[in-house]
Amino acid sequence: MSKGLPTRGENYSEWYNELVKRADLAENSAVKGCMVIKPYGFSIWEKMQRALDDMFKETGHQNAYFPLFVPKSFLEKEEEHAEGFAKECAVVTHYRLKKNPDGKGLIVDPDAKLTEELIVRPTSEAIIWNTYKGWIQSWRDLPLLINQWANVVRWEMRTRLFLRTAEFLWQEGHTAHATAEEAIEETNKMLGVYATFAEEWMAMPVIKGAKTPNERFAGAVETYCIEALMQDGKALQSGTSHFLGQNFAKSFDVKFVNKENQLEFAWATSWGVSTRLMGALIMAHSDDKGLVLPPKLAPIQVVIIPIYKGEEDLQKISEKVNPLFAELKAAGISVKYDDNDNQRSGWKFAEYELKGVPVRLGIGLRDLENGTIEVARRDDLTKESRPLDGVVEHVKNLLDEMQTNIYQKAFRFREENTFRVDSWEEFKTQIEKGGFISAHWDGSGETEEAIKAETKATIRCIPFDENKEEGADFFSGKPSKQRVVFARAY
Amino acid sequence: MSKGLPTRGENYSEWYNELVKRADLAENSAVKGCMVIKPYGFSIWEKMQRALDDMFKETGHQNAYFPLFVPKSFLEKEEEHAEGFAKECAVVTHYRLKKNPDGKGLIVDPDAKLTEELIVRPTSEAIIWNTYKGWIQSWRDLPLLINQWANVVRWEMRTRLFLRTAEFLWQEGHTAHATAEEAIEETNKMLGVYATFAEEWMAMPVIKGAKTPNERFAGAVETYCIEALMQDGKALQSGTSHFLGQNFAKSFDVKFVNKENQLEFAWATSWGVSTRLMGALIMAHSDDKGLVLPPKLAPIQVVIIPIYKGEEDLQKISEKVNPLFAELKAAGISVKYDDNDNQRSGWKFAEYELKGVPVRLGIGLRDLENGTIEVARRDDLTKESRPLDGVVEHVKNLLDEMQTNIYQKAFRFREENTFRVDSWEEFKTQIEKGGFISAHWDGSGETEEAIKAETKATIRCIPFDENKEEGADFFSGKPSKQRVVFARAY
Repeated sequence: MSKGLPTRGENYSEWYNELVKRADLAENSAVKGCMVIKPYGFSIWEKMQRALDDMFKETGHQNAYFPLFVPKSFLEKEEEHAEGFAKECAVVTHYRLKKNPDGKGLIVDPDAKLTEELIVRPTSEAIIWNTYKGWIQSWRDLPLLINQWANVVRWEMRTRLFLRTAEFLWQEGHTAHATAEEAIEETNKMLGVYATFAEEWMAMPVIKGAKTPNERFAGAVETYCIEALMQDGKALQSGTSHFLGQNFAKSFDVKFVNKENQLEFAWATSWGVSTRLMGALIMAHSDDKGLVLPPKLAPIQVVIIPIYKGEEDLQKISEKVNPLFAELKAAGISVKYDDNDNQRSGWKFAEYELKGVPVRLGIGLRDLENGTIEVARRDDLTKESRPLDGVVEHVKNLLDEMQTNIYQKAFRFREENTFRVDSWEEFKTQIEKGGFISAHWDGSGETEEAIKAETKATIRCIPFDENKEEGADFFSGKPSKQRVVFARAY
Repeated sequence: MSKGLPTRGENYSEWYNELVKRADLAENSAVKGCMVIKPYGFSIWEKMQRALDDMFKETGHQNAYFPLFVPKSFLEKEEEHAEGFAKECAVVTHYRLKKNPDGKGLIVDPDAKLTEELIVRPTSEAIIWNTYKGWIQSWRDLPLLINQWANVVRWEMRTRLFLRTAEFLWQEGHTAHATAEEAIEETNKMLGVYATFAEEWMAMPVIKGAKTPNERFAGAVETYCIEALMQDGKALQSGTSHFLGQNFAKSFDVKFVNKENQLEFAWATSWGVSTRLMGALIMAHSDDKGLVLPPKLAPIQVVIIPIYKGEEDLQKISEKVNPLFAELKAAGISVKYDDNDNQRSGWKFAEYELKGVPVRLGIGLRDLENGTIEVARRDDLTKESRPLDGVVEHVKNLLDEMQTNIYQKAFRFREENTFRVDSWEEFKTQIEKGGFISAHWDGSGETEEAIKAETKATIRCIPFDENKEEGADFFSGKPSKQRVVFARAY
């Protein structure tokens, strides 16, 4: 099955594309730029959704649903926001088809032209803040802490499964607050939620920081982000949290009476992660044999494969497996017993490696005699024969250990591929090799643009955790207040 | 809060509209025909989703995600399907906006016209069967049992919150099978899942049956449905399950090699329920004081309200409430303690009645002295003082009892409002009074149309459970094979 999967070394990009398809995660659809998320891929996304949704609710947020369409005039109201998204808008202009009077099929009915065009939401600030106008009158209505799970469309010419698609799935939080301080606290809190999710569930270390003004969300005062390093040395922005100031409140006239009985514009945040996280998950951990999934996000955590010749052997094995299966399930482990007779066990081994199932249990006739079972782990591809007795407890611990191990491996990789650079020559050499580059920046958009033009490297973020060591910009030589993180990025 | 809620008797339609708004379920958005589902309404929908999703998975289905857009040429491929949906299609014609060269704002960029228009999915048979072509080669690939949770758009001129909106949320199952029998079995099975959900979760009795050819889904060979009776005597179609034959397989050329090694077209089903169920839930049970929610779908099952004068009293009460709250929570009951000091307890009582919270626990100083608590139930509006000891167990049982009671009340209502009618005069009189009418039908579309034209009554379904008693059509006098169910409908 995995025969012919290109290796990461040969062609990282092809390896990714092929892996996404062969592991049944997603495929391109007949609609340009839109993907089909296949059942196996979707079941991973569902696990992500569930974990994130729980975290949102624990932090006091509620889900709601707002319209798919944004009237053009709404999008226009916040000027920077409008400019930022104008080039990517799918536009609904008509609301009816009719039979083609000149022949077969259907045509757009020219009599059914909308008086105002509707934009398929590229993000929902405009439609949501227009709604919030009706919901917010007094400080007692605040904070308003709402999240939406939805599909959005941003027209893209060059797309890649999960990483950049015209339609994608995401969640977008939209909150309103009585003070700037509260809104900033929320912006930080949700960035923290994303970082926790990335590290504890996806087993993917991330750097938290602020975007430079050039890289901010269109309409935001500040954009915070989490940045992860992929195995090819490129960065992947994995989540963003925006402090929107009063920009949208002003554009949509959302005022409230504060405790001092004065009218004031509300303060806003928005924050989102998308199916792009699927791309991050795949690229952060997988290997040349296929997916490597952290156990917490694996739809199937354990697969049991019988090794046998005939129907009679299988029956004997199944007798041992059935109680084991039940015990694993009772322990809260998601387990599959693959006794499908159409495929040989070797084919199955490769298939579940491709699919990233964390633990494989192999059991044959000799195991029955010896009271043993083979336990193979996907992360380091090791295997060992163990007593069948106590194997459930062992697997439970192993899943925890693997979750940690996968994180630590990614963490070590990031440490080994983060470089402090202080000269332009060094920078140009290092950026070709990939990785995060920690370097001084003078804070100007011109310097940032010039570096990008020459090297394709961007400032991924101004990290929160970096020591505020002063220095000189490696490119311009001008003074710098702290090191920032450069990389080439997805 | 509920002051001014119109009564059902006065104006059922206004009662519904006002209830949806005041109970914070949904509101109209600035986009014509599209609704905003507010957090409280959405939390009910989430409970429905979770229960249905679990049932789909228990019956072997997996979730996936397909594109929002359907190319116009795909929609055209199944002719009846195309005709059925053509008049309701939101059409994307362009993929970019640009700055208005003649003034302010943005205009649609005429250079960014799509070569083929994209339809915002009104349903996904076309895009999904085009995808299935790549997934189905052999009988081993079947059955393919897939569901999608998604938003769809059917342009409607006259909309009502939840019941009929241009955009709505739904799930759509799309399955492929090797034989007609298997597909029909699936169609039936999923209708059964819907009926179970309606009755056990929504506490809403439904009639299972088949639609007449006139009322079938566009492109289906058979449409099965569940029909419920609302309190105003109108029917509401609450879910449909379609046997699509080989229509879509033929339109999209989906063939598989069967066990006899011959190429054959696959057999299809599709089935769906939508946010329309929210409308059904509201209209089936609620009263003039507000929502009545079956406990299984209530986001808050129990609210505890302190009755007190000053801060000191509240503290004393809270000391008693805190362990009770914890105990209820530990028993798996979703509970809220409303110690908000801004509103009086009377206001809170009315508010939670409006929101349909099944059980209200009131506790004041005298209760502290007596070791009692007031238990009020939303379904029959009765209340009683009970010993605080053992109240958790009591509430647990009460919630079960209420779930049953709400179902039985709706069931009795339906029984009392189902009439056997055998003459045209009787039919015309009865239909004005509302209810289900069980009557003989000759099986012809002409008779069905004529009855509809004169009375606005439609055949809701040809019920599965009805005795196959023969008779004469009450309108045409022609022979009839069985009684069918007529009603005016939403």
